[in-house]
Amino acid sequence: MARDVQSERPANSFKLTKVGVRGVMKPVQVSRPQRIVTLPATFDVFVDIPATQRGSHLSRHLEAIGEIVDASVRRPVPSLEDLAETIATALLERHETATHSEVWARADYFLERTTPWGRASLEPYRLVAKAIAERGKPPRTHRAIGVEVVGMTACPCAMETIRDELSAKDPPVRVPDGMPLITHNQRNRTTMMLDAPEDSNVEADELIDIVEASMSSPTYELLKRPEEARLVESAHRKPRFVEDVVREVLARVLKRYPDLPDGALVSVKSESEESIHKHNAFAERTTTLGELRA
Amino acid sequence: MARDVQSERPANSFKLTKVGVRGVMKPVQVSRPQRIVTLPATFDVFVDIPATQRGSHLSRHLEAIGEIVDASVRRPVPSLEDLAETIATALLERHETATHSEVWARADYFLERTTPWGRASLEPYRLVAKAIAERGKPPRTHRAIGVEVVGMTACPCAMETIRDELSAKDPPVRVPDGMPLITHNQRNRTTMMLDAPEDSNVEADELIDIVEASMSSPTYELLKRPEEARLVESAHRKPRFVEDVVREVLARVLKRYPDLPDGALVSVKSESEESIHKHNAFAERTTTLGELRA
Amino acid sequence: MARDVQSERPANSFKLTKVGVRGVMKPVQVSRPQRIVTLPATFDVFVDIPATQRGSHLSRHLEAIGEIVDASVRRPVPSLEDLAETIATALLERHETATHSEVWARADYFLERTTPWGRASLEPYRLVAKAIAERGKPPRTHRAIGVEVVGMTACPCAMETIRDELSAKDPPVRVPDGMPLITHNQRNRTTMMLDAPEDSNVEADELIDIVEASMSSPTYELLKRPEEARLVESAHRKPRFVEDVVREVLARVLKRYPDLPDGALVSVKSESEESIHKHNAFAERTTTLGELRA
Amino acid sequence: MARDVQSERPANSFKLTKVGVRGVMKPVQVSRPQRIVTLPATFDVFVDIPATQRGSHLSRHLEAIGEIVDASVRRPVPSLEDLAETIATALLERHETATHSEVWARADYFLERTTPWGRASLEPYRLVAKAIAERGKPPRTHRAIGVEVVGMTACPCAMETIRDELSAKDPPVRVPDGMPLITHNQRNRTTMMLDAPEDSNVEADELIDIVEASMSSPTYELLKRPEEARLVESAHRKPRFVEDVVREVLARVLKRYPDLPDGALVSVKSESEESIHKHNAFAERTTTLGELRA
Repeated sequence: MARDVQSERPANSFKLTKVGVRGVMKPVQVSRPQRIVTLPATFDVFVDIPATQRGSHLSRHLEAIGEIVDASVRRPVPSLEDLAETIATALLERHETATHSEVWARADYFLERTTPWGRASLEPYRLVAKAIAERGKPPRTHRAIGVEVVGMTACPCAMETIRDELSAKDPPVRVPDGMPLITHNQRNRTTMMLDAPEDSNVEADELIDIVEASMSSPTYELLKRPEEARLVESAHRKPRFVEDVVREVLARVLKRYPDLPDGALVSVKSESEESIHKHNAFAERTTTLGELRA
Repeated sequence: MARDVQSERPANSFKLTKVGVRGVMKPVQVSRPQRIVTLPATFDVFVDIPATQRGSHLSRHLEAIGEIVDASVRRPVPSLEDLAETIATALLERHETATHSEVWARADYFLERTTPWGRASLEPYRLVAKAIAERGKPPRTHRAIGVEVVGMTACPCAMETIRDELSAKDPPVRVPDGMPLITHNQRNRTTMMLDAPEDSNVEADELIDIVEASMSSPTYELLKRPEEARLVESAHRKPRFVEDVVREVLARVLKRYPDLPDGALVSVKSESEESIHKHNAFAERTTTLGELRA
Repeated sequence: MARDVQSERPANSFKLTKVGVRGVMKPVQVSRPQRIVTLPATFDVFVDIPATQRGSHLSRHLEAIGEIVDASVRRPVPSLEDLAETIATALLERHETATHSEVWARADYFLERTTPWGRASLEPYRLVAKAIAERGKPPRTHRAIGVEVVGMTACPCAMETIRDELSAKDPPVRVPDGMPLITHNQRNRTTMMLDAPEDSNVEADELIDIVEASMSSPTYELLKRPEEARLVESAHRKPRFVEDVVREVLARVLKRYPDLPDGALVSVKSESEESIHKHNAFAERTTTLGELRA
Repeated sequence: MARDVQSERPANSFKLTKVGVRGVMKPVQVSRPQRIVTLPATFDVFVDIPATQRGSHLSRHLEAIGEIVDASVRRPVPSLEDLAETIATALLERHETATHSEVWARADYFLERTTPWGRASLEPYRLVAKAIAERGKPPRTHRAIGVEVVGMTACPCAMETIRDELSAKDPPVRVPDGMPLITHNQRNRTTMMLDAPEDSNVEADELIDIVEASMSSPTYELLKRPEEARLVESAHRKPRFVEDVVREVLARVLKRYPDLPDGALVSVKSESEESIHKHNAFAERTTTLGELRA
């Protein structure tokens, strides 16, 4: 019988809070309203180990992921976060010495959008699901949903400086009513993560809606010439700093999810890949809904 | 006079905890023992803004970085973390409404090593410096040093299973004394971050030493054939899980820095790019020195 | 009527050989033996434009991709390269001034494998499809299939040096029969690309088989302890340089596809993420099958 | 004496055209006008091996890089391409069976710029040097310089559509003289590579000038408010497709380097990270100067 090296005492008796595997790729079958989608997801999963145990049995991590994801082929899961939670619970069962487990799943995701001009468009996003399980009878679990959305921001500041410079000319240049002024605009990448208790109605598609509505404009794959002009004009009528985007997402979350508990965590990060600089502008707020409601 | 759009009231009154720029590249002159090195560093810098202020004046972030880094050309800084701390303090001065600031600097770094066989070798590492400043009279600052080290791990578990299988053969295969057994080995990437108060003796070069000594073997750019064989043999005589690497780093930190306060944070992460799997093995401990000493 | 800026004469009259879009993401439905899989693919598509035309109408690129990929939802395509070829032909139809078009599609891909010990495993790979269309009556098309496979290499050289050192000891250490010697082993990433004329039997799954069989060992997601030991042993019995991997792939391609024309291009690249160095070992051969057959 | 495994006959007798190492990091001392700069460069180096040789002696690649780069510490090299050429020649000397060698070196690079408003700014770029050596008496060498420049493009097409829509209104909106119209603008990344024979005057700093002048606007790290407005306005007065950028670079290269031979290769690629789409626009021309001059 082979030595169980992992179960031996370690040379240095410290507990470890995260031991596991990163970058495990698996296609997951998820049931969405009116359809089943395949999400090729990447998993990072961890458990803790006590100070007396040399190593985690890593093959058990893979067994847990494998069996649960395989089951989704026969019976699609309701969501990536639901799957993550099931894996987190299974990890505790398979690792008797663990007191908690943590699961991250990330996947590209496509959503059918309609442009303001009626054109259907399938747009790419990125989903993140996180689940934690704490040992207990029964184990307590916790989960969160994250989305990454690419859109557009147009800078409010340059626009106002240009307005001032036009009016300061001699004679002043009068901007015709309803004509938006030039500014720099750029690709913006905003991510948000929100706690999603099992009985809550938090749902990835809605988080994507919230983020997209908070930018100067959503972006689309296919724009014919008049549509392109209207999108540009529309973004210039709603200029946004990264700070504005983060706050708008926060305000919409509070309004949309009044029933989420005060302890629920929310994190919003917005990064604009500045067209006038080689670096990016960035804003973030990570807090509880209770703090925001105060 | 142009409108100061950033100073206006925002549509949604939430404070933001991090507003700034990411990915600013600057070459820094650092004074090392017996030499001056140029580190092309990448900076991420942030301040908070109150609920009443629409935006941060981002050009002030760039002014702070620019002036302080430029000064390093004339007068090299003692370390990247020292530079980060100076920038963090300057950010508070330039952003009157900010209560704290945060600075990250990252750079490739080279260190002269000598192989156990006497060959000199210049090896690449990665440095991270973090500094935080909190408004007060005087402002309080806090800083940490991080390193990323690439080395080698050889798996202890597969080695023992192979030993058992050899002895279970009929007749048993007797392993000659002093002959190491095969196992899978691979590239390992270990990062650590340690609080480094200004009066402490924490220094990046030593953290690199600590991490490298905790793996199955350091790796070198140039190995002639006998040296390659000895490095392989040496790694097989010191097989290490990622768990072992993390704990060994922790033990060495405790021993090396007895004077660091109990509140000092340490974070160690070790990731092995498994040769027998397409995914990675991972272990982490993030805690205070006080917890480890208990 | 808006100016057609793209159709104007450019300031500098040079033709351009590639104008288009990169990074368009679309989920594609592909029909595999006994199943239909969804591949979230990333497309890069290009046409040439003459010296007299200022710009390509980029929205036509998106229309071509969109309509053809959408059709795959209703009627799954036989393969990614088939889809790429259809898009390449459609690009020529939509861009009247273009003389050729080029399409690249890349996707993560999963294949059911069985380990030598009978365990089923779904392993991740990467697919690449390339198609070119040249204007003519009818247009001539050309296509190629590429795969990226992660596996394991064990170094033959360190193994022999260690054998010599053991026998040079006084007294010499006798290696028991059938006991493999230690060496460094590591993650290897091998890519190949092969022309795949429409009437050929070149197929991505077989290319993956060929590459995987050419390494020291394939790798698997889940290995229980005895399986891990056997995989390690098996890899040590088949040590391979990157040079060996490339040549083995070439030999297997020649044998497997005797009917491919001499003009068919093949490219094989193998990169080992060396466990004993921080850099990678690399080998490549890009040539025609005719050259290899000579 | 250890077996020289690399010199044995391979199982499959195919020559290999590229065998070597990738990702070797080394700090290089380069002499620029009025200063010496340290460039932490990444090297990829290759030689060919004949059908009769199993493997390349990879340690010789590292010896060649190491000795030549180390020498630059004592005696700075005139340029990265000069260093690459020296390494390419040294590789042929150390690999007796090789008929050619290939060296790539890549490095971040900083250049002092002055904004149109007189502000000094140190801006980051990326350098690439390529050198090839062919065995002969004496060996023939060939080298090329590449640069990657980040700047800004403003779209000419959306601007004209918006002009048309304004004049189509009832009553038509009259755009005041000298007022630029809105459009989408974004970060653009343009790379060029040009053959640089030893006696030519091709120089990286000038290639960066050429590329930067061909965009809608260069970008700068620090812009105070009026400068930001002027940069935005200036970019809107010079709207550019990626196609325009590539052609402008080509025209400037022809004009700047009339003495370069017709056989000299030039490659220009421009990619705009579209603010209105999630994908990028791309244009490329790779050809000889002779073709462009025809």
